[in-house]
Amino acid sequence: MFTHQHSLTIEWGDCDPGGVVFYPRYFAMFDAATAFLIEAASGMTRAALIRHYEVIGWPMVDTRAIFRTTTSYDDRIVIKSRVAQLGRSSFDIEHRLLRGDTLCVEATETRVWTMRAGEHGGIKATPLPDELRDALARAR
Amino acid sequence: MFTHQHSLTIEWGDCDPGGVVFYPRYFAMFDAATAFLIEAASGMTRAALIRHYEVIGWPMVDTRAIFRTTTSYDDRIVIKSRVAQLGRSSFDIEHRLLRGDTLCVEATETRVWTMRAGEHGGIKATPLPDELRDALARAR
Amino acid sequence: MFTHQHSLTIEWGDCDPGGVVFYPRYFAMFDAATAFLIEAASGMTRAALIRHYEVIGWPMVDTRAIFRTTTSYDDRIVIKSRVAQLGRSSFDIEHRLLRGDTLCVEATETRVWTMRAGEHGGIKATPLPDELRDALARAR
Amino acid sequence: MFTHQHSLTIEWGDCDPGGVVFYPRYFAMFDAATAFLIEAASGMTRAALIRHYEVIGWPMVDTRAIFRTTTSYDDRIVIKSRVAQLGRSSFDIEHRLLRGDTLCVEATETRVWTMRAGEHGGIKATPLPDELRDALARAR
Repeated sequence: MFTHQHSLTIEWGDCDPGGVVFYPRYFAMFDAATAFLIEAASGMTRAALIRHYEVIGWPMVDTRAIFRTTTSYDDRIVIKSRVAQLGRSSFDIEHRLLRGDTLCVEATETRVWTMRAGEHGGIKATPLPDELRDALARAR
Repeated sequence: MFTHQHSLTIEWGDCDPGGVVFYPRYFAMFDAATAFLIEAASGMTRAALIRHYEVIGWPMVDTRAIFRTTTSYDDRIVIKSRVAQLGRSSFDIEHRLLRGDTLCVEATETRVWTMRAGEHGGIKATPLPDELRDALARAR
Repeated sequence: MFTHQHSLTIEWGDCDPGGVVFYPRYFAMFDAATAFLIEAASGMTRAALIRHYEVIGWPMVDTRAIFRTTTSYDDRIVIKSRVAQLGRSSFDIEHRLLRGDTLCVEATETRVWTMRAGEHGGIKATPLPDELRDALARAR
Repeated sequence: MFTHQHSLTIEWGDCDPGGVVFYPRYFAMFDAATAFLIEAASGMTRAALIRHYEVIGWPMVDTRAIFRTTTSYDDRIVIKSRVAQLGRSSFDIEHRLLRGDTLCVEATETRVWTMRAGEHGGIKATPLPDELRDALARAR
C-alpha cells in the first residue's frame, strides 16, 4: 500500500496554555497529511482531483487518535502516513507522528470518496476510480 | 447605523502558550460578530442571504486591530459591533471587544458585497441590495 | 454520572470548501464541551481549577469520533456530554452532537488529571481529587 | 533591515465555504512568518529565545492587513517578511504574501518585546536586547 511522509515544524499558534499542541490541531495536520499522500499517489493536487473526478473529496467518517507524548512549538516532526485498507468507496489511512524516534501521536481514519447528490447539498459515497485505487494500492 | 452585541467565553483552545488569546482567533471572533450583525439587521441567516441574493458573501478587503490588553480562557467578553460606513458595495464595521468595562481589542474592517463572476472561480463586487443597505443604516 | 449540555451555532469559519464543518473543529468544540461539563460539575472555572489544584489540566490521551452526517454554518447544534467512566486519575467523556433530533457526530475521549513533574516541562498523571470525582459521579 | 522568506502550501482546512483562505488564517501564517524571521536573525528558536532572555515573547499590539486577491487550497505561496522599524522595545514587521508574482495580501504589524511583571499574570514591555536588535537591523 502507498505510504507518504510529511515534515513540519510545530508553531506557537498550534499550542495551548499548557505549552503543548492543542490536540484538535493534530487532526488538521493529519487531514493535510492524507491530502499529501493522495496527491503523491495520484500525481494530482486536491483541486485537480476534485475537478477531474467531479467529486467533493474524501470526507472523514471515523477517526481515532492516541496521544502518547506531547509536542511543542519549534519541534520538528514527521508524519508517516500509509494506506491501511482500500474498500469500494472507503479507505483507511494510518498516521504516525514522530519527533525524532519518539512516537508522539498515532491515528487511524476512514475516509469515503464522495460526490454531490440531489439539489439540496446532499452527498453520497461513490466508488474509488480504478486508477486512484491502483495508485493507493501501490507499494512504496 | 446598525449596532449589534455578541457575548462569548474565551476557550482554552483560543489561547497560546503565553496563556492569552492567540490574536488570529480574535479575527475569527470578529468575522462571526459581523455575520451576527448582518443577520440581526436583515433578519436572515448567512446561508439564507447567500441563497436569496445569489452572492458569495462579504469578503474582507482591509482590517486593522489594536490589542490594548490581553484576555484569557474563561474570560466572559462582549463584542460591540457597529456599521461605521456604507458605500455602494463596500461597508465598514467597527468592533470593540470588552471584558467588563475594559476595552481589550479594537478593530475596523472593510467588507465588500460580492458575487461570482466568470467560469473560473472569479468574483466581483456588486451593489448592496437596497433593503440590506436600509437595514444596515437603521439606527439601533 | 454527570451530564452537561452545550448549545452553539456553527460559524462560517468552522467550515471548509465543501461547505461543511472541517472535522478538526468538532474536536475543539468537544474540548470546550468537556471543560463546560467539568466546570458545571465542580462549580469552578478551568482557570480556578488549575490554580486551586495546582494541575495543568486534563490532557487528552485517546479520542475517537464518528461523523454520521454533516453540519454547516448557521446550524444550531447541541452537544450532550456525559461522564462515561471514572478511573483513579483518568476519566472518559462521551459527546453526542445533535442538530434538532439528528445525531451528527459521536465522540468518546479519555482524559487524565495531570500535574507538572520535574524541571523540564515534564508532566504526570495524578489522582482525581475526591470532591471532583464525587462531583463528576453525581447523577444529573 | 533583516528580511526573511517563508514558503507554504495553502491547505483545505485553511479555506472557508467560499473556497478561499478564511482570512484569520493569514494572521496565523504571518505570526509564524515573524517567528521564522526572528529565528533566522537571531539563530535561536522561539523556545530558546524565551528561555535565554526570560521573556514571554513578542505579542502583537497593532496589525493591519489588506487583501488584494484570494488564495485557495494547493496554492504555493511565499511570504516575504522584513523588519520595517526598530524601537526601544517595539518593532514593526511588514509581510507580503505572493502567489507567483501576484501580491495577494499585505500586512504590517507592531510587536513588543515583553516579559512577565508582578505575580498575577501581568506583562510589561522590556528593551530589545542589543544583540537581537543588531541582528534584526542587519541588512540581508
